[in-house]
Amino acid sequence: MATNYGPHPFDPITPEEIKLAVRILEATFPGVSLRYKRIDVNEPIKKDVIAYIEAERLRRPLPPPPARLLYVLFHRLDTGAFYKAILNADKRTIVYAKELPKGVQGPIDIDEIAGIEEMCMKHPAVLAEIEKLQLPAGVTVCNDPWMYGTDNDNEDRRLFQCFMYMVEVDHPQNNHYSLPCKFSPVFDGLTQELIRMDYLPGGADFETTSTQPWKPVKTVQYAHDLLDEPLRTDLKPYIVQQPEGPSFSVDGNSVYWQKWRFRVGFNAREGLIIYNVTYDNRNLFYRLAVSEMTVPYGDPRAPYHRKQAFDVGDTGFGMNANQLALGCDCLGHIKYFDGYRNDSKGNPLHLKNVVCMHEQDNGLQHKHTNYRSGAATVVRNRQLVLQMICTVANYEYIFNYIFDQAANVELEVRATGILSTVPFDNENGQTVPWGTNVGPGVMAPFHQHMFSLRIDPAIDGFKNTIYYEDSVPMPEDEKNPYLVGYTSESTVMHTAGTANTSVDRHRVFKIRNDNITNPITYKPVAYKLMAAPSQMLLVSKNAHGFRRAEFATKPIWVTKYQDDELYAAGEFTNQSRRAEGVETWVQRKDNTENEDVVLWHTFGLTHNPRIEDFPVMPMERVSVMLKPDGFFNKNPALDVPQSSQLFNRSSLHPEEQPAGCCARASSAGSKAKLYKRIE
Amino acid sequence: MATNYGPHPFDPITPEEIKLAVRILEATFPGVSLRYKRIDVNEPIKKDVIAYIEAERLRRPLPPPPARLLYVLFHRLDTGAFYKAILNADKRTIVYAKELPKGVQGPIDIDEIAGIEEMCMKHPAVLAEIEKLQLPAGVTVCNDPWMYGTDNDNEDRRLFQCFMYMVEVDHPQNNHYSLPCKFSPVFDGLTQELIRMDYLPGGADFETTSTQPWKPVKTVQYAHDLLDEPLRTDLKPYIVQQPEGPSFSVDGNSVYWQKWRFRVGFNAREGLIIYNVTYDNRNLFYRLAVSEMTVPYGDPRAPYHRKQAFDVGDTGFGMNANQLALGCDCLGHIKYFDGYRNDSKGNPLHLKNVVCMHEQDNGLQHKHTNYRSGAATVVRNRQLVLQMICTVANYEYIFNYIFDQAANVELEVRATGILSTVPFDNENGQTVPWGTNVGPGVMAPFHQHMFSLRIDPAIDGFKNTIYYEDSVPMPEDEKNPYLVGYTSESTVMHTAGTANTSVDRHRVFKIRNDNITNPITYKPVAYKLMAAPSQMLLVSKNAHGFRRAEFATKPIWVTKYQDDELYAAGEFTNQSRRAEGVETWVQRKDNTENEDVVLWHTFGLTHNPRIEDFPVMPMERVSVMLKPDGFFNKNPALDVPQSSQLFNRSSLHPEEQPAGCCARASSAGSKAKLYKRIE
Repeated sequence: MATNYGPHPFDPITPEEIKLAVRILEATFPGVSLRYKRIDVNEPIKKDVIAYIEAERLRRPLPPPPARLLYVLFHRLDTGAFYKAILNADKRTIVYAKELPKGVQGPIDIDEIAGIEEMCMKHPAVLAEIEKLQLPAGVTVCNDPWMYGTDNDNEDRRLFQCFMYMVEVDHPQNNHYSLPCKFSPVFDGLTQELIRMDYLPGGADFETTSTQPWKPVKTVQYAHDLLDEPLRTDLKPYIVQQPEGPSFSVDGNSVYWQKWRFRVGFNAREGLIIYNVTYDNRNLFYRLAVSEMTVPYGDPRAPYHRKQAFDVGDTGFGMNANQLALGCDCLGHIKYFDGYRNDSKGNPLHLKNVVCMHEQDNGLQHKHTNYRSGAATVVRNRQLVLQMICTVANYEYIFNYIFDQAANVELEVRATGILSTVPFDNENGQTVPWGTNVGPGVMAPFHQHMFSLRIDPAIDGFKNTIYYEDSVPMPEDEKNPYLVGYTSESTVMHTAGTANTSVDRHRVFKIRNDNITNPITYKPVAYKLMAAPSQMLLVSKNAHGFRRAEFATKPIWVTKYQDDELYAAGEFTNQSRRAEGVETWVQRKDNTENEDVVLWHTFGLTHNPRIEDFPVMPMERVSVMLKPDGFFNKNPALDVPQSSQLFNRSSLHPEEQPAGCCARASSAGSKAKLYKRIE
Repeated sequence: MATNYGPHPFDPITPEEIKLAVRILEATFPGVSLRYKRIDVNEPIKKDVIAYIEAERLRRPLPPPPARLLYVLFHRLDTGAFYKAILNADKRTIVYAKELPKGVQGPIDIDEIAGIEEMCMKHPAVLAEIEKLQLPAGVTVCNDPWMYGTDNDNEDRRLFQCFMYMVEVDHPQNNHYSLPCKFSPVFDGLTQELIRMDYLPGGADFETTSTQPWKPVKTVQYAHDLLDEPLRTDLKPYIVQQPEGPSFSVDGNSVYWQKWRFRVGFNAREGLIIYNVTYDNRNLFYRLAVSEMTVPYGDPRAPYHRKQAFDVGDTGFGMNANQLALGCDCLGHIKYFDGYRNDSKGNPLHLKNVVCMHEQDNGLQHKHTNYRSGAATVVRNRQLVLQMICTVANYEYIFNYIFDQAANVELEVRATGILSTVPFDNENGQTVPWGTNVGPGVMAPFHQHMFSLRIDPAIDGFKNTIYYEDSVPMPEDEKNPYLVGYTSESTVMHTAGTANTSVDRHRVFKIRNDNITNPITYKPVAYKLMAAPSQMLLVSKNAHGFRRAEFATKPIWVTKYQDDELYAAGEFTNQSRRAEGVETWVQRKDNTENEDVVLWHTFGLTHNPRIEDFPVMPMERVSVMLKPDGFFNKNPALDVPQSSQLFNRSSLHPEEQPAGCCARASSAGSKAKLYKRIE
């Protein structure tokens, strides 16, 4: 199993490293049974990495690579204590293993979820409630265990709230979210004890009742073989071919495409990470990743007030990444990347095809027609896409990092999957102001999806400055005699802090390198963030959910880089009482001018469900882009070859129409009636 | 030339109709020479059209079609008077021909532009200025005539401002915008007289000088054969094939695709228009079009304060629509639509391929993986795109109407082309606060692009109501005990008026039909507008440019439908003193609840140029979408077949890497050095 060569500093964990970690910890805790939550690479020390990757970039002799550190979270099964350990994989030693304070719960792992789910279904109190439903033959019950959002600062137990659903048909894609039950047990995840049976409100108020026999209603299904209506038959194949192969090349996790070079990283928490991004061998970004995402729900009633998932910190996008399939999740010529994670026993698990990469055509990138000569320059917008899709129980997130030939990089997030639903007796025309009826007996509460994109920039170097520019009218004075003048107003973020977006001022955030001046604009080279101005967190300042997700209360955070400050809501979010993330780090008021800075952008979707979002939601798209702004001396895509038929081989629609469509038109009336003679 | 059958009410003008109009007017004004500005279809009377298209939709016997009216603008060459005429093509008669008030200039036509351009180049005063430049052999001068933005309410002359440029090389794609001259003649377009020679500021202040010998600098070129650097050679072909043909069918200008049906309209002013949009035979929109677009510039100095193009009203997107080429402007299986316009003599001109239509793949539309069974439903997002590209002298706009299978329709605008530039002596590190240096001797001033999308809705019928919903926290009282509750707050626009967007309140505008209730949500069926919140017009309230473009001062306007109210800044924008558009029509305070309403959305780009936007700008994208919201009873794309390899035929990237990329990696250091042994 041993490899001859070690991984690159940015490479994901290997199965050998997972095994190594277990061996080291078994040796450290002899005779103690350990339950592994997470065995992963610990982010390498940046200053050591910089020396290494700069030598790579500049093709100089490589210095020693940074220490390969591993990050392990585990429970001791003898004491129940929760530990964090850092290991040195090079030296095969432990750096430290520390017991974490009692209130720190650590993330939920997949074995744990499966265990709770199974245990719940066997629990006598749960079975007794199911009995009371008096379900028809064939209808069964299942449950989704949820993280137990904090509502009590003195709660030290590791808790799970199981939401229960009726299963109408035994089908691998039955939509149980269409039939939520009105009871919800809460379990202690460590002792497996039933803490409490919660009853869910059935109407538009807070009232709950004991479990009653179920009045059958039909499930709103999405599986194609469970639909009442036939599938469409008029969709014709659309095939993408690259007869000469793709324009990218890959070496391990290193990708080369159209002057771009970067490394594909992957860990259990963030999933896809983009490292060490350069364009034409100039540094752009040290690291890009979605650092956190929280989903607070707006239904004011217990126990829904505790529904506030942190899908990065509580579980992990890497943990939940789909294993993607050719021809389904990507179209064209596809390169897949794999990952590894551990199970609770410390065994490595192979996560095959968790990231896919392909090229796509995105219409036109630039065009100009000289109207005098008619001569046109047309350049299409070829893109390189890296995609990860995460299933977080009912819901799906699709993350696409999109690189183009004009040196832009975009993070596009698509929200899809199944809404988190609650039971609701809506047969009599009842509605609630905090949710949407999406089917008989089922309502989908309003909620927000708040993402934090962590941008660790390296614009032509590792010392950068964040500032913003507003577009403002000039004063109405002699310098603006016709009252049309407007200029931009710059505000430098000299110290760590926050800022708001502003549509009315067309505020644009930029990252510049004060040490390098563009020879034509006479301004420092820069990239700009095309932010996604979004409504911030709606929960009250006095709510637990606010303190736990302060990153989601401001769209822009700037911190000075420190190792281990990677996650906007802090390292441990599950049942956290408050975040220890960006809101803490900005307090240092570090100098952030011409420094190693990090830009955190919070954006999101206020998602008041449409009925059209059920049973599976057509994707809702939100996108953030990083664009050069004074970084180059002209359009960097000028050297992309002209778009031409020789290259693209498009086909012309025949002018003669098939009978089908004419028949359709004339079915609306006879041809003679449709048209009128004008001579 | 006579056809047997007349056009559909929404069909674009035919060459026969252009000739008919000329014949009717020649008969009306015998012996008078007429110069035709515009001969087009006049929008048919809506109430007559509704009866007709409803009969089509419901497959009932067709009533008589609405009168086919033609719209003609012309100058009498004997008196110089400017006329508007409406003709009845069915009866071959004139409805009226009226002389317009002296201040009304009417749009600029292509023959007129060409005439001014040619005349300017021969004018002795212009030649004298060129002489003073003492240009090197081979360098010549050209000019772009511009509409003369109003700065004087008493100006009745028809004026043109010619911006002059040096032409470095005789090449059909030489970028003259890189070398602007510092003089700019103003001509009377009717008398052809030189009104004034303007001199442009050369520095960062208002100072102008007489024309001096040119100090040669290099043109920043975009044409591929004028670039210094070689083209990229590593872009591999990407071919889209539809072996079974497209999923759409076409009958004349009627399009059928995936439950959608609509008609492709085209006129010289708006260009592409989408008419009579239905989905699954339910009415959605009567008419969608970009009704106006204005581009005010922020450089406060004369004569730049008059740079405020209205690219719909002053010239016309249809007039300036590119004739698109297979394999360049569209990729895949392409259907083209043609248009016709008149020349100044009244001859019909064929505008071939001004709209292209094709399908595209836009990644995933919806996905859900059942984490228990691993079974996944994956549906890709097939789209139908209708594209028009307009060249407005230096600049290009790309308009895409995008239909998808989840009943969404999007208007995507891409801004590209060449920045409007001004001369600027920037060799000494000089900058201005209202523009960006984009090359030697050339600066691109800040400006805004303000679009008005006119949405004439027909959500399940022709009487609709516009309202907006804000997401707001619940009060902190006993109904919100955990402080997490939030609800939506509705505001109905009962009467004609305006509204603001609001990111902070997540304001969403909706169009509902109060007469039809969704059986599950218990709310009226509706579509929502995914608006593009944008900075509004930056010019002062006291500027001419404000009064001329009041539509661009508010993002949302609601009016009650009236025939002939089509253009947000009014019918005549060229040298207008004030708009007579939406700002006038909302004054009526018409009832707009459950009425025939029109929703006008102003959105745009505050465009402070990047140097990367020169010499041709990588597209900047802005998008607006209309989405069902309680219109259907579930996701309307559920019946789209599963995405599968059988259908998509994707290919897997070979795991064995070609030598090329490994070679590249090892050129960064020997392989042994890149990696380090860990055991």
